[in-house]
Amino acid sequence: MTLNVVVVGVGKIGQEHIRRLTETLAGARVVAVSDADSAVAKVVAARLQGAAVYAAGEELIAAKDVDAVVVTSWGDTHAAYVIAAIRAGKPVFCEKPMATTEADRSAILDAEAAFGRRLVQIGFMRRFDARYRAMKETIQKGAIGSPLMFHSVHRNASSPGHFKATMAITDTAVHDIDIARFVLGDEPIAIAVRAPRGNTRAAGVADPLFTLMDMRSGALVTIETSVHIAYGYDIRGEVIGETGTVSLAEQTEVVIKTNGAFSGRVFADWPERFDPAFNAEFRAWIIAAAKGGAAGPSAWDGYVATAATLAGVKALKSGVREPINLRDKPALYA
Amino acid sequence: MTLNVVVVGVGKIGQEHIRRLTETLAGARVVAVSDADSAVAKVVAARLQGAAVYAAGEELIAAKDVDAVVVTSWGDTHAAYVIAAIRAGKPVFCEKPMATTEADRSAILDAEAAFGRRLVQIGFMRRFDARYRAMKETIQKGAIGSPLMFHSVHRNASSPGHFKATMAITDTAVHDIDIARFVLGDEPIAIAVRAPRGNTRAAGVADPLFTLMDMRSGALVTIETSVHIAYGYDIRGEVIGETGTVSLAEQTEVVIKTNGAFSGRVFADWPERFDPAFNAEFRAWIIAAAKGGAAGPSAWDGYVATAATLAGVKALKSGVREPINLRDKPALYA
Amino acid sequence: MTLNVVVVGVGKIGQEHIRRLTETLAGARVVAVSDADSAVAKVVAARLQGAAVYAAGEELIAAKDVDAVVVTSWGDTHAAYVIAAIRAGKPVFCEKPMATTEADRSAILDAEAAFGRRLVQIGFMRRFDARYRAMKETIQKGAIGSPLMFHSVHRNASSPGHFKATMAITDTAVHDIDIARFVLGDEPIAIAVRAPRGNTRAAGVADPLFTLMDMRSGALVTIETSVHIAYGYDIRGEVIGETGTVSLAEQTEVVIKTNGAFSGRVFADWPERFDPAFNAEFRAWIIAAAKGGAAGPSAWDGYVATAATLAGVKALKSGVREPINLRDKPALYA
Amino acid sequence: MTLNVVVVGVGKIGQEHIRRLTETLAGARVVAVSDADSAVAKVVAARLQGAAVYAAGEELIAAKDVDAVVVTSWGDTHAAYVIAAIRAGKPVFCEKPMATTEADRSAILDAEAAFGRRLVQIGFMRRFDARYRAMKETIQKGAIGSPLMFHSVHRNASSPGHFKATMAITDTAVHDIDIARFVLGDEPIAIAVRAPRGNTRAAGVADPLFTLMDMRSGALVTIETSVHIAYGYDIRGEVIGETGTVSLAEQTEVVIKTNGAFSGRVFADWPERFDPAFNAEFRAWIIAAAKGGAAGPSAWDGYVATAATLAGVKALKSGVREPINLRDKPALYA
Repeated sequence: MTLNVVVVGVGKIGQEHIRRLTETLAGARVVAVSDADSAVAKVVAARLQGAAVYAAGEELIAAKDVDAVVVTSWGDTHAAYVIAAIRAGKPVFCEKPMATTEADRSAILDAEAAFGRRLVQIGFMRRFDARYRAMKETIQKGAIGSPLMFHSVHRNASSPGHFKATMAITDTAVHDIDIARFVLGDEPIAIAVRAPRGNTRAAGVADPLFTLMDMRSGALVTIETSVHIAYGYDIRGEVIGETGTVSLAEQTEVVIKTNGAFSGRVFADWPERFDPAFNAEFRAWIIAAAKGGAAGPSAWDGYVATAATLAGVKALKSGVREPINLRDKPALYA
Repeated sequence: MTLNVVVVGVGKIGQEHIRRLTETLAGARVVAVSDADSAVAKVVAARLQGAAVYAAGEELIAAKDVDAVVVTSWGDTHAAYVIAAIRAGKPVFCEKPMATTEADRSAILDAEAAFGRRLVQIGFMRRFDARYRAMKETIQKGAIGSPLMFHSVHRNASSPGHFKATMAITDTAVHDIDIARFVLGDEPIAIAVRAPRGNTRAAGVADPLFTLMDMRSGALVTIETSVHIAYGYDIRGEVIGETGTVSLAEQTEVVIKTNGAFSGRVFADWPERFDPAFNAEFRAWIIAAAKGGAAGPSAWDGYVATAATLAGVKALKSGVREPINLRDKPALYA
Repeated sequence: MTLNVVVVGVGKIGQEHIRRLTETLAGARVVAVSDADSAVAKVVAARLQGAAVYAAGEELIAAKDVDAVVVTSWGDTHAAYVIAAIRAGKPVFCEKPMATTEADRSAILDAEAAFGRRLVQIGFMRRFDARYRAMKETIQKGAIGSPLMFHSVHRNASSPGHFKATMAITDTAVHDIDIARFVLGDEPIAIAVRAPRGNTRAAGVADPLFTLMDMRSGALVTIETSVHIAYGYDIRGEVIGETGTVSLAEQTEVVIKTNGAFSGRVFADWPERFDPAFNAEFRAWIIAAAKGGAAGPSAWDGYVATAATLAGVKALKSGVREPINLRDKPALYA
Repeated sequence: MTLNVVVVGVGKIGQEHIRRLTETLAGARVVAVSDADSAVAKVVAARLQGAAVYAAGEELIAAKDVDAVVVTSWGDTHAAYVIAAIRAGKPVFCEKPMATTEADRSAILDAEAAFGRRLVQIGFMRRFDARYRAMKETIQKGAIGSPLMFHSVHRNASSPGHFKATMAITDTAVHDIDIARFVLGDEPIAIAVRAPRGNTRAAGVADPLFTLMDMRSGALVTIETSVHIAYGYDIRGEVIGETGTVSLAEQTEVVIKTNGAFSGRVFADWPERFDPAFNAEFRAWIIAAAKGGAAGPSAWDGYVATAATLAGVKALKSGVREPINLRDKPALYA
């Protein structure tokens, strides 16, 4: 069976997902697209041999030949499309952020609860990364004892031009926040953010930042975000347990010895680092969506990540620790 | 466009390739299968929603709706199917060995030459491994100077029950022989094999072996095959140039610190180690076959690998260095 | 020339230093010892072929045949001996803490200033560690750009029985505080301490702790102290610059591959990890003391480390960031 | 007690050993020197505050105030000095080669046997290297099963001007031959040498070479010598057992991340790489010699190493495997 997918929003990320669904992975077909810029939508559809172009996402989602939805439109529009998909009873893959307001976040949880089972999968691809999975398994096997701390490091060579002051929290640290929850199996209760002297290469952006997030268990999560560090894209992580630690290993294809040194490669950017994770994420989604469901990160995960990053933005401004207030976790996500 | 593929020989490897072509990768469909054991063929076909079952591979290859052929039958039968595919002008992916006799090997080269362009791709998946590719690129960039030696290490935790004395050369070292040619861009001229004291865990198999292969340039390739080493599947390689070296890096998802040690994982077996390479190999084949051609390792590569391993088997018995005699390389493979 | 040394306080550390001065390194001789426990002093002296035993350290320091002094007595008594040595114009090596009161700390600085040149060397052996030296040189060469952060990790398998709540700051983190100053060439201005959920293996001790120290330049130093982590003694450090990072490498003699894993050793305890640093520290001291001076960490370094750790203890209790107030740096230490 | 040492031959190596005995390590004093070039001997002695200068080594060795002898004269003269020391009943440390003729080698064994206990220590410093010791211990603990192969790699950035064709065997591979015997606890029985295409940077020297040495147990030792490889001084080694392997770990103080790569340092030359081993070697010798004996590598080890390298030189010329004939091992070395 081939999953018929519509893609709402065909900018850079949307096109990348289309490429993965049609040229890389088995099991899916993109039957329609939609974009605020209809000219772009037409160009993308033309490449897809007969994909329809719709003016509005909602209409598209309702279409009969549509099995499932990918939402990669502008962040503020995500919630409406996700809710439309839930109401149509169709599986929906939604990129971060799931929602940008408190009301929208809760509305999605409510809609999914009303539907009665999971339809929403959020694009936290790290949860499909073999390294983070091995990290979680190591903890679950009890190999390092109960977790006490998690040190996460998130480094980009540079940030894009549109990157604003607090995006190091909402767009960068959000990944570390989500993966810390995943790896530790724990929920955040408070967050504080420290801003050291700024990197002179990063005008107008709070960079680097050092975030401390308290978890319900008492574990402490620390997050370094360095988004202008020049040398590459480098994702590090270490969990400190009562009797041992587990950390992400370095990755390089080869080690070269020349001129008095051995050396290996650091990734240039995230599409390369997480390419296998993106494949695993969409493979899981295609299989789950074909059965009418979802895999991996849920609407609840999107809800908590948003709560934590918004508290983080507040903490950066206030200079003190801010609480992260979460509604009770719906039974659907137990 | 979807490539319609027939698979000749649906044993373990054949089924694995079918799974990859139908469940993992985009762009292909398995429309028919054939196997010496027709009962197995029927079971496999049944899983493929309407795939035809043919009694004989040749008939299958000729079928109208067949775009391309995968040959994973018993080794002795490979050549006949490959030649049938070439005569039908259809792209053919053939597992190792391409042929088992001198006559067959040459017949394939002649058939392809007669057809006038490449149709044959041999299953040397290492050539699609990101690590070996990085190794080759490092040399090509001149980073380590001209190559003088290549040390290849091929270790298996254990060998299957049917593994015979000389299969450590024909089935194991064959990969190292091919990848050395690929990485160095060089051809072998002679081979010698040394057998140290045998591993007591490896009854009846020549294990370990240490092979020395002379290349046309004067470079020396050394190959350790240890096929009963218990600890895991470990593929190592280092090229020694005039001013530096390049070697395959260790691979592990995480590093764990417990009990006075840090540790990382070694692969258990080859399907896991080379899974991304197999994906890349078939992705390249699907794209090339859809255009009527082939990618990566050619019939010439299959020819040379066979020549070298047969000389290796002779050298193991004779105890002296044996020449590897190659016919002139056809222009097709220049 | 052989340096005639007296050792004041011959407990565990004192005896270890005597062993190093007499059995390992060239250039020194221990001519006298003193200890609060005179019986112990006599036993130690007896092993030293004619070393004198003095009742009180001050008397000893004044003795004519004494060239230089090693102070390894109980912490509270350090300052008095150090000042006695300065007054006698004799080089003095003093273990941490240099002093335990504000008055004593300043008195030492004043005494040395009055004498007019450096006589005091504090036992911060990490400054002689080849790894930290390479780290500092990397920064000084400009290889990673200006430092923005330093992540220091200090882990012990377990802490001794007498270890009290705040010793993770005064005895453990003190090393990280000093080495951060050394590596960054920067001074601390404030300190905050976070206590995650306690390690259940560490009854009565604040463990782990996570300390944040602000430096004058705006750089942020973070220090994880985990003093009951079971797996070994592990000292990690990474400096984050504007364009790169430098971190302490793993150390192991060999890598072993068995049972599906590769593994290396983690140190069991600090005497082993820092043995070469202790040798380098005392070699530098013997040479400097023979010329009437001192090498490496100065009284000023002892002064600042004490100021920072006392502020750290206060911060642990207060839960907020505490300032580190330093007097002006005397010209002697410029 | 201080060991009174005479040094016979005060060229570069002799002076280096004098420096280590007098400025670095406790327990020894150099009381006299001798050299073929008496002017050099006088200069060196002058630095040693009253060391005597003797015209001939033998006279020196007999001198009353001499406790022990270090032989670092020209290779051809070693045997005579070693035998003189044995006859005088004095411990003697002798640099490689112990002897250069068959007769001399045997004469030393006979002299020591006649004396009745070990007096001779050969300068195979690798046996005091913590890494090789850990390698041997790993095997002895049974962690990797019985050894089947040892791959040794010996790389120099460049070789000195006086380096002749076969010195890659007699001066370079000799270390690998000795350490293989030490690590495996095994004796060599035959040797073959392969010369790949020469490094164009190494005019007149057989470089690289690839040596295969058969051991009595059936284990195979392979030795790569690359003495013009430019990138640094790199000593690698891996023992392959029946169930696992153990290899020398990389060594670097720090790991630097800049410009898309992580990197660590490779040693520039052997004095740096083996400095701790030289210290351990002489510390062991001082302690053993003070008791009238010797530590570590014996005259037997010198004898076997010479036998193997001479067979290796023959094998390089003959192109075939040459036997290594050893006399029976005297009981003294059991």
